Amino acid sequence: MSFWGKIMKEDKFWRDVSNEIIYNVEEAVSPLVGKKEAGKIVKMGADGTPTKMIDVAAEEKVIEILKDVERPVTLVSEEIGEFKIGEGSSEVFFVVDPLDGTSNALKKIPAYGISIAVADARNHLEDSLTIQDIEVGLVKNMATGDLYEAVKGEGSWMNGEELIPSVQDDISSSSIGAFIYGTKVQRINNLCKMIRRMRILGSVAIELCYVASGAYDAFMDLRGNLRIVDIAAAKLIVEEAGGVVTDQSGGPLNGKLNVRERTAIVAVGNQNLHKEIMKFMGAL
Amino acid sequence: MSFWGKIMKEDKFWRDVSNEIIYNVEEAVSPLVGKKEAGKIVKMGADGTPTKMIDVAAEEKVIEILKDVERPVTLVSEEIGEFKIGEGSSEVFFVVDPLDGTSNALKKIPAYGISIAVADARNHLEDSLTIQDIEVGLVKNMATGDLYEAVKGEGSWMNGEELIPSVQDDISSSSIGAFIYGTKVQRINNLCKMIRRMRILGSVAIELCYVASGAYDAFMDLRGNLRIVDIAAAKLIVEEAGGVVTDQSGGPLNGKLNVRERTAIVAVGNQNLHKEIMKFMGAL
Repeated sequence: MSFWGKIMKEDKFWRDVSNEIIYNVEEAVSPLVGKKEAGKIVKMGADGTPTKMIDVAAEEKVIEILKDVERPVTLVSEEIGEFKIGEGSSEVFFVVDPLDGTSNALKKIPAYGISIAVADARNHLEDSLTIQDIEVGLVKNMATGDLYEAVKGEGSWMNGEELIPSVQDDISSSSIGAFIYGTKVQRINNLCKMIRRMRILGSVAIELCYVASGAYDAFMDLRGNLRIVDIAAAKLIVEEAGGVVTDQSGGPLNGKLNVRERTAIVAVGNQNLHKEIMKFMGAL
Repeated sequence: MSFWGKIMKEDKFWRDVSNEIIYNVEEAVSPLVGKKEAGKIVKMGADGTPTKMIDVAAEEKVIEILKDVERPVTLVSEEIGEFKIGEGSSEVFFVVDPLDGTSNALKKIPAYGISIAVADARNHLEDSLTIQDIEVGLVKNMATGDLYEAVKGEGSWMNGEELIPSVQDDISSSSIGAFIYGTKVQRINNLCKMIRRMRILGSVAIELCYVASGAYDAFMDLRGNLRIVDIAAAKLIVEEAGGVVTDQSGGPLNGKLNVRERTAIVAVGNQNLHKEIMKFMGAL
């Protein structure tokens, strides 16, 4: 039985904690959506990027709730870094992006939400935990209310309904989400010309969930500067739905659970389309 | 006093018709959102592109309501083309995209809605009417419930609140919506590298409204195959908010109100940023 099975089903403790985090962060964020002042830069995050007021409000809620938990836990989150809470070695790692799609939330563009990934830390050296050790993934799109969940080895669901990714394997008919602005435009120019439809919504966690649900046939971010915290939950959601998640060369993601790790990602609804995309990018 | 003032305020007739169209199309579309079967191609549109079941359901509602109107009107819409309803010369042209962002609606990506633009036909030869004669524009994002409205010479509003576009005039800090896949990627490569943030939501009407509201600093579609019906309402909404709308060379849009006219569009929150963008694209 999986970790979520063992810890979350038997005593439901960490599941309740996750739900409480989602509920409270949503409550903290919601009055700030669309508000200019919520975008004020108030400090620098643990990863060296500027942090906005709305991000701080969201993360503070996460910390507050985990501090109330009477079991040892490590929080990995953008602003605070790796943060140990409670006495003794951590039972779990909570890898949290309290607000993915911050700029969308500030502009009321409907793709922003929270991402929570949970790893069992009991049988691991803490600094050896990687994204592959994530056992539970939760992503909530706060703009639409859709909740995506995955449990390793058990499957993934949106609002309780099983997620089924796309079976589209013809590139020229495919709808792809892609972060292509910045430095890597040249690299996927050929791909851009081939595909049917491109989307850039500006929330990696939610757009990866779109691959799990079949709303996108694929999603890729080749800039190589995605944080593990941004994708930890959604990666599991895609994989448990039956999709394929790799790096830009087709290899597995194996970043450690900290805020310094950065990666590229290619997530595709099915193996065949993944192969086609890799061919087009010259990786195969 | 403007047309909306004269016709819509005094007897409210065409305003009520517009509201009735929006209400009924939304009711027809809503049970089909996210449904695979709603994407079945059922016929070819007046402009030669395939038409999906959900598009037909939306357009049929528009036709049904306009047929009940006891005054002469011309409907210009994607599937039906230019369609004269009632006896005598048309009082107004209703230029309608019953469902903009069809593929989003089918996938439950939250950017799809209806666009209605109204032109006064009483003092014009009917085939001389252009997009510049649009007097009223209405766009509703059905996924979020946001209603954008403009009245020529009077202003534009979202849910009754005045729209204020972005004052951002530094390209390197700008958020731009752009349809760049397909044939024109090379042309705006330089621009892509310069800007802060890019979005592609897949609904031209809604993304143009984002320029009016300041959610985007700019939006451009350079493929040159946008239909006038797709942009007629939103163009006025941007302009009445104080934004700038031109073609790819910086010239005014002046397409006729029919389904054959195609155009490119560059819509920007303010004059300065528009100038910068034009420079970068080599148009100035």
